Amino acid sequence: MQKTNLLQTANNAKLFEYINIGQLNGNTLTVLQAENRTLDFHVHKVSDELFYVLEGQFTLEFDESAVTLAAGDLIIVPKGIRHRPVVTTRVTCLLMELDGTLNAKNTGGAVAQNL
Amino acid sequence: MQKTNLLQTANNAKLFEYINIGQLNGNTLTVLQAENRTLDFHVHKVSDELFYVLEGQFTLEFDESAVTLAAGDLIIVPKGIRHRPVVTTRVTCLLMELDGTLNAKNTGGAVAQNL
Repeated sequence: MQKTNLLQTANNAKLFEYINIGQLNGNTLTVLQAENRTLDFHVHKVSDELFYVLEGQFTLEFDESAVTLAAGDLIIVPKGIRHRPVVTTRVTCLLMELDGTLNAKNTGGAVAQNL
Repeated sequence: MQKTNLLQTANNAKLFEYINIGQLNGNTLTVLQAENRTLDFHVHKVSDELFYVLEGQFTLEFDESAVTLAAGDLIIVPKGIRHRPVVTTRVTCLLMELDGTLNAKNTGGAVAQNL
């Protein structure tokens, strides 16, 4: 049985490298560092998505609102809700969504398209 | 769409008060503060369980090993694995497991038995 320090793990990786931390009941946990990137608006049709900020901050934009999350803040975007992350300064995050949800389109090309 | 600061939310609650943070794909997110409590060994037959330490530290004991987790450490206990948390000094944690998994027995009486 092994523990993982999320911030250390993310900070030892490259920028935009999605590091798989484990699986929980069919969901994938990932950490990554990002900087100066805005993804296209997108929808996850079958999966809720969790964002938890470990260090830094970023903004999640929705159709009619926006939420800026700083270190220690968590948000769950329900499935079907259009959103896009807007990252300016360096941010380190934990992500979580159903296995197979992340793909090239919704990660700015960082995660290969699911087969 | 609302964010939650996990540590602030947990620290505004009573000791051993399980605060529901939200649901993600059929899983429940909870934060709590605990101190000076050891739960009985138990198994979650159908759910993996996630522990993430926000502040302080505690130990997870298994049949033949133990892992001490400090702030920033995360562990996933797969379903079917016998474990018990051993908490001495104050710890603030995020927990996550399938909806309905927590009950009186595996929370030291803090969460009412599921119906």
